[in-house]
Amino acid sequence: MSGSCFSFTVTATDGAARLGHLETAHGPVETPVFMPVGTAGTVKAMMPESVAATGARIILGNTYHLMLRPGAERVAALGGLHRFMDWPGPILTDSGGFQVMSLAGLRTLTEDGVTFQSHIDGSRHLLTPERSMEIQDQLDATITMAFDECPPFPAEKQAVADSMRRSMRWARRSREAFRQRPGYALFGINQGGIHPDLRAESAEALTALGFEGYAVGGLAVGEPFEAMLETLEATVPLLPFDRPRYLMGVGRPEDIVAAVARGIDMFDCVMPTRSGRTAKAFTRTGDLNLRNARHRDDPGPLDPACSCPACRRFSRAYLHHLVRAEEILGPMLLTWHNLQYYQDLMADLRQAIGQGSLETFLATFHATRAQGNGPAPA
Amino acid sequence: MSGSCFSFTVTATDGAARLGHLETAHGPVETPVFMPVGTAGTVKAMMPESVAATGARIILGNTYHLMLRPGAERVAALGGLHRFMDWPGPILTDSGGFQVMSLAGLRTLTEDGVTFQSHIDGSRHLLTPERSMEIQDQLDATITMAFDECPPFPAEKQAVADSMRRSMRWARRSREAFRQRPGYALFGINQGGIHPDLRAESAEALTALGFEGYAVGGLAVGEPFEAMLETLEATVPLLPFDRPRYLMGVGRPEDIVAAVARGIDMFDCVMPTRSGRTAKAFTRTGDLNLRNARHRDDPGPLDPACSCPACRRFSRAYLHHLVRAEEILGPMLLTWHNLQYYQDLMADLRQAIGQGSLETFLATFHATRAQGNGPAPA
Ligand SMILES: [Zn+2]
Ligand SMILES: [Zn+2]
Repeated sequence: MSGSCFSFTVTATDGAARLGHLETAHGPVETPVFMPVGTAGTVKAMMPESVAATGARIILGNTYHLMLRPGAERVAALGGLHRFMDWPGPILTDSGGFQVMSLAGLRTLTEDGVTFQSHIDGSRHLLTPERSMEIQDQLDATITMAFDECPPFPAEKQAVADSMRRSMRWARRSREAFRQRPGYALFGINQGGIHPDLRAESAEALTALGFEGYAVGGLAVGEPFEAMLETLEATVPLLPFDRPRYLMGVGRPEDIVAAVARGIDMFDCVMPTRSGRTAKAFTRTGDLNLRNARHRDDPGPLDPACSCPACRRFSRAYLHHLVRAEEILGPMLLTWHNLQYYQDLMADLRQAIGQGSLETFLATFHATRAQGNGPAPA
Repeated sequence: MSGSCFSFTVTATDGAARLGHLETAHGPVETPVFMPVGTAGTVKAMMPESVAATGARIILGNTYHLMLRPGAERVAALGGLHRFMDWPGPILTDSGGFQVMSLAGLRTLTEDGVTFQSHIDGSRHLLTPERSMEIQDQLDATITMAFDECPPFPAEKQAVADSMRRSMRWARRSREAFRQRPGYALFGINQGGIHPDLRAESAEALTALGFEGYAVGGLAVGEPFEAMLETLEATVPLLPFDRPRYLMGVGRPEDIVAAVARGIDMFDCVMPTRSGRTAKAFTRTGDLNLRNARHRDDPGPLDPACSCPACRRFSRAYLHHLVRAEEILGPMLLTWHNLQYYQDLMADLRQAIGQGSLETFLATFHATRAQGNGPAPA
């Protein structure tokens, strides 16, 4: 299949887990994949080539933020988001539906869409399925997400059902409004909270419409870890085998490996980037906080197995110093490391699935993560 | 002369301006040179290799900041400042004298030195010539600055004279306490405000002691531009021809070219880095503020003649967006550009001096800078 067409091929499986290959208008992506979040046209504190250097091949942009600032029409006039932020690779944009409900002020939800007030300047805006498709098209998103609504957790089942059914009507309107171009894709979003029957109803509605990929939305919003896993186990088998499956907004390393084992192919989360700005680091032997005084005199690397600049060239003592002195280089290096950690984890998962050794990998992963992070040996 | 010895060679002159070559324990430096400021063990918002990529070969560290956090003993235990911050090239450290008077609280100045309170945690410290030499040695400074005092401007001439004479007594103690190592150097600091007779007295005292280089201190502290130039014209000819001359804390591009034309070889200033964090950019056609709304839709580069990533790969519109959205990438890119601008300016000055065309270069420099920064042509 030509690289100018959007395609997805499962090349190996290991239990429910899949190794896959995605072709897009902006280049290929190996799955399972983690997409760093570039909310406002930048993966915070990272040069684009540094994001690529970690192994990232696709990033996420946020419709809600970009429509408010700098504005989708402006991005389009400047050549689209790829050129604007110098990221020539694939970009997935969310629909704005989730963030408008969590960030905007004075929201009014109707069957047509959502009117809201900008959290930046108080200006009034309307988001509908049609407008969301238009914005994501103006941004030149490689993968566009259908416009949906995500109910809060916990919520009454009837409220979750009503919300899911409205999202399915919006999914139809998104499908109809989406402008098809070779190598570009529209993903539908499965909703239904933690209720298997609602998830099944949603999966049926989406597959009837037909999308290039399917997301599982409305998880990692506060429900217990076990509830998330049970929902995945009930939902993922109902999604088409030959389409990529994307678990939105997830998550911790432990969440990701569990979801990969249950057949998820794509992830995004602010955790590695946000943690990098609050001195938190993910390592193979567990998570740590560089602000802690026990790192003050530690000449050892953050994670000896990591190839990123923070680990190859600097000590924990230096990273601790940068955090304490509130130097910008602290977030720069810790974000880089965390993104490298996530990309290395995905590469390890892909290798394990390809070798049929996912179970062994997961056992080692959990045992190593549980070791904890004492001071490095002298 | 071997690279393991500290040496300075003037290889060409053009009027009072000199082209020079510095050899140090940490590598060579071509002069006139601009040293980016790495106050607390990092050139703010820059990876060390990015600093080097701009053409910078020597950076400055601040004794006052580093002695308080992380502490000179700690830096020494971690292998010295070069290793701590991953800058293998030469590092010049100031003596702490200037910053203790401008930043610290509850200062008491005696003939012995200065006792003061840390601006970070209120702890009490003592800086003397001997302690300053010890700290800079622990930091492993390639170039150590003598401990001096810089009186405020304006000040009574008698106060300036008293301060200068104390600084000269401290210079002698610094010279005696400094640990000589091959490729390392101690610079004396000329003081005396804007009074030619005091500057001459200071120059005589310093040259009698003998230093590997000579700084002009106490300028760019609020005096008029013309007063600074007149002081340089009176002072520089009194400094040894065959030693590097360093104008401390200067300055704007216009200050630097004027000082080079008067025989100065070395500069440092927070201006390019600090400006990068407040949306200000230096360009060949003048200075500008990226926060200004007129850049909002400008697809053109910040400075078409600049080779830095901010100019090669992004638009003014994107830089404006980063500034407005308070994204860390904004300071990162603008700092990089400003440092590139300063390094390019120094390279142009070195080329002009080598060709004997400094006067022509300066005329073009001033005419181009005066053009101003309208929106780039479409
Ligand atoms: Zn790392
Ligand atoms: Zn530039």
